[in-house]
Amino acid sequence: MSQKFINLNADLGESFGAWTMGADEALLGIVKSANIACGFHAGDPWVMRQTVQRALAQGVSLGAHPSFPDLQGFGRRRMDIPARELEALLIYQIGALQALAAAEGGRVSHVKPHGALSNMASADDSLADTVARAVRALDRDLILLAPAHSALARAGERAGLPVALEVFADRAYQDDGQLVPRSHPQAMVHGAAASWAHVERMLSEQALISLSGQRLPTAIHSICVHGDGPEAVETARYLAERLTQAGWALEGLPGVI
Amino acid sequence: MSQKFINLNADLGESFGAWTMGADEALLGIVKSANIACGFHAGDPWVMRQTVQRALAQGVSLGAHPSFPDLQGFGRRRMDIPARELEALLIYQIGALQALAAAEGGRVSHVKPHGALSNMASADDSLADTVARAVRALDRDLILLAPAHSALARAGERAGLPVALEVFADRAYQDDGQLVPRSHPQAMVHGAAASWAHVERMLSEQALISLSGQRLPTAIHSICVHGDGPEAVETARYLAERLTQAGWALEGLPGVI
Amino acid sequence: MSQKFINLNADLGESFGAWTMGADEALLGIVKSANIACGFHAGDPWVMRQTVQRALAQGVSLGAHPSFPDLQGFGRRRMDIPARELEALLIYQIGALQALAAAEGGRVSHVKPHGALSNMASADDSLADTVARAVRALDRDLILLAPAHSALARAGERAGLPVALEVFADRAYQDDGQLVPRSHPQAMVHGAAASWAHVERMLSEQALISLSGQRLPTAIHSICVHGDGPEAVETARYLAERLTQAGWALEGLPGVI
Amino acid sequence: MSQKFINLNADLGESFGAWTMGADEALLGIVKSANIACGFHAGDPWVMRQTVQRALAQGVSLGAHPSFPDLQGFGRRRMDIPARELEALLIYQIGALQALAAAEGGRVSHVKPHGALSNMASADDSLADTVARAVRALDRDLILLAPAHSALARAGERAGLPVALEVFADRAYQDDGQLVPRSHPQAMVHGAAASWAHVERMLSEQALISLSGQRLPTAIHSICVHGDGPEAVETARYLAERLTQAGWALEGLPGVI
Repeated sequence: MSQKFINLNADLGESFGAWTMGADEALLGIVKSANIACGFHAGDPWVMRQTVQRALAQGVSLGAHPSFPDLQGFGRRRMDIPARELEALLIYQIGALQALAAAEGGRVSHVKPHGALSNMASADDSLADTVARAVRALDRDLILLAPAHSALARAGERAGLPVALEVFADRAYQDDGQLVPRSHPQAMVHGAAASWAHVERMLSEQALISLSGQRLPTAIHSICVHGDGPEAVETARYLAERLTQAGWALEGLPGVI
Repeated sequence: MSQKFINLNADLGESFGAWTMGADEALLGIVKSANIACGFHAGDPWVMRQTVQRALAQGVSLGAHPSFPDLQGFGRRRMDIPARELEALLIYQIGALQALAAAEGGRVSHVKPHGALSNMASADDSLADTVARAVRALDRDLILLAPAHSALARAGERAGLPVALEVFADRAYQDDGQLVPRSHPQAMVHGAAASWAHVERMLSEQALISLSGQRLPTAIHSICVHGDGPEAVETARYLAERLTQAGWALEGLPGVI
Repeated sequence: MSQKFINLNADLGESFGAWTMGADEALLGIVKSANIACGFHAGDPWVMRQTVQRALAQGVSLGAHPSFPDLQGFGRRRMDIPARELEALLIYQIGALQALAAAEGGRVSHVKPHGALSNMASADDSLADTVARAVRALDRDLILLAPAHSALARAGERAGLPVALEVFADRAYQDDGQLVPRSHPQAMVHGAAASWAHVERMLSEQALISLSGQRLPTAIHSICVHGDGPEAVETARYLAERLTQAGWALEGLPGVI
Repeated sequence: MSQKFINLNADLGESFGAWTMGADEALLGIVKSANIACGFHAGDPWVMRQTVQRALAQGVSLGAHPSFPDLQGFGRRRMDIPARELEALLIYQIGALQALAAAEGGRVSHVKPHGALSNMASADDSLADTVARAVRALDRDLILLAPAHSALARAGERAGLPVALEVFADRAYQDDGQLVPRSHPQAMVHGAAASWAHVERMLSEQALISLSGQRLPTAIHSICVHGDGPEAVETARYLAERLTQAGWALEGLPGVI
């Protein structure tokens, strides 16, 4: 990664059937990579296709955002699925998005697990290996987008996949690099200014900075932003502007690793 | 198509989760092309992957067998789905199978709609066009496997897709080339000998032969057989043997068109 | 029905999992009967329970709003389901709501089919009989809420069920009592004033009034209003006020038949 | 419980759509209580209704067998579902079966959780309380069928529910009363003779007997048998015969507590 290139990513395509969710239009004008729901926690084939169309129109790179099969729980419920079944579930979801991308002349360039699957794969080496194995079985050039200092990032490297490391603009870190749980009063970084300060320091030091001030060196390829609520979109926009002013070129994931 | 090459196809991978269905192992030793359920009426990602593995091991060519979203009704319930949603549903299913095939080093070479979707697309030009559009959007080299003299076959040709025409070994035809409805006492052709006589005459005349003796000329690329019950497997095996004895080489679908 | 009592009903509880839909809080302060989604086209068990709680707190009578199994299509897709399976699907959904109502100390007093099922059962005697049979099998005292002059209303009467007849505040009628299709330019009655004029005339004449001015006499027990969008809620509120001013007492469905 | 009455229970109604499972007809002639799948891990509304019909015809008492929402995993995957959502999921499933039972003139008399939900609720007090709360919210007279010495049994008693305690004819116990995990070589009791010896000793001592010979006193109201495979059915039949010969009267669950 050149020091001067950075990616912004966000979860998109989370509508389902008659239900809409998210500020996709606004975010697609800000971020450079989209994590697109694949129908198991959100999204449906028609929503997926529309999201692909819109992302391509904005030059936003496409990523699959596979999940546990849990529409009602939005993929946030932890599940125990045997490894071989989970591997097949992931390939199925990624492949479905690849096909919808191909139908629009596009290409899926990264994979980022969603929700409880992501949380579990960030901490559990065995589950992380299952995720990496699914991606590699499908296409060794797919980028695995994983939290910096996570079990998932390490599994991607073990599997020989291109791994992009992300940090969260609105979340505080523990000394071991894990996110501060949402139940903790200082879990969240609130507001555009504080988010920018958080991100700027991590980028300048090329490290996660924990709540206690601990410094965990890491490459940083991408910053994850959110679009739930007008404030979140404003924060995302503000981060994009400050990054540009600070000399960072915002690129799709394939351009930063 | 060379006059000397013919394909046998069957529906496979119709187990789901803890439930098993079908005589997949026996049929994979007989047929040359597999129509693999894609999770919407039967099959699940792990069943799909296993079916791909077994088909590849037997040199059986892989086809997607997409359906209306109707697991409980096994895809046999007619549904009205807006064209753009249906098109996306089909691309989604085919793509999921393509990915599982790719993970096993294989490739999906044909698409055959299932159940009520197939019945409706055989008679309704507009729905048939939607199916053909989905296949073409994804990959113009995918073979559309369609009943001879069906609206679906015509739609595939209009779309410029490679179209393989199939006849049914165990079903009688009406004068317009449609299947005799199952409610009719002579709808089904029973037993191995009668099935072979039915197939042999259609192949030798290169035509559908209706109950009343009407002759509807058509190329014939494939014969659809079934595997529900030991008798059905025996009929399939018998047909394969007689075809071989009659000088037909049994090939995967890509080899017959 | 006393001439002085009338019911207002609306569809409620149409959120699902992480997705919200509808102006339930506003409508629950206006209508007297709630048609609560049962999980097959919208709603989930927790949404259903919350909707029951809120309806009971507002003195709104509870109704089941069962549907074809079609979450992605919001129950708006026509489906062909064998009668005995459909009957069981309906009993299942109604029973699930009855249990959640019982858990809150309430009771389901009516059933109103949703979406494509409602449209089909309004025109098809055989399907209407299946719906009526399901309701009667479960509880002969459940009120069937059906469009005036519909096949469903007639089926309910044939089955000996208490039948409440509804008219739509925002839809125009054809000479045969069916709704003018939405594709027709005059299908919808727009705005609070026009809706009130439409309703007032039907109530005063105790008849459906078609676009061409035809009069189809009918008892009217309930008026169906909608809550999609702020204008719809305002129209519902306006209707409730004008009805009260005109001397109508607004009651739950059990109070009007 | 009179010492002379005992119940046999089995899981039934586990077919789904086009897929069949289990030896329901055979088991319904042997057991006295049926745990009927409610559509979340197996069963569908029509299967549920048929199972109710058959159980009633054989004088077998009806129980709900609710599960996590996991059709593909047959309810065997552990899931983390927030308590209030799980409580609603359980009420929904039980209510659906109650309605189908009512439609056939029957009544659900007990509830027994399935699969991973049962395993988790047997060991986790908080989850067990959620299950008990769901049952109590719906009907304080519903019998909770729970493993002897389980957290679920204790939760049922805390909630004031009638609790029936079951032992397993084919599973060995640990010293703490939990089942020996299936991974252990001695987890299963094989064959009719060994199963009867296992059951007979537990009944005569009114205690669980662990692998090491430890004795954990408990009332025993029911014996759980299985129907997967011809041997299992034979074991169930043998147990029923030996129990009768030993002077035990086999009764539905309401008759033994």
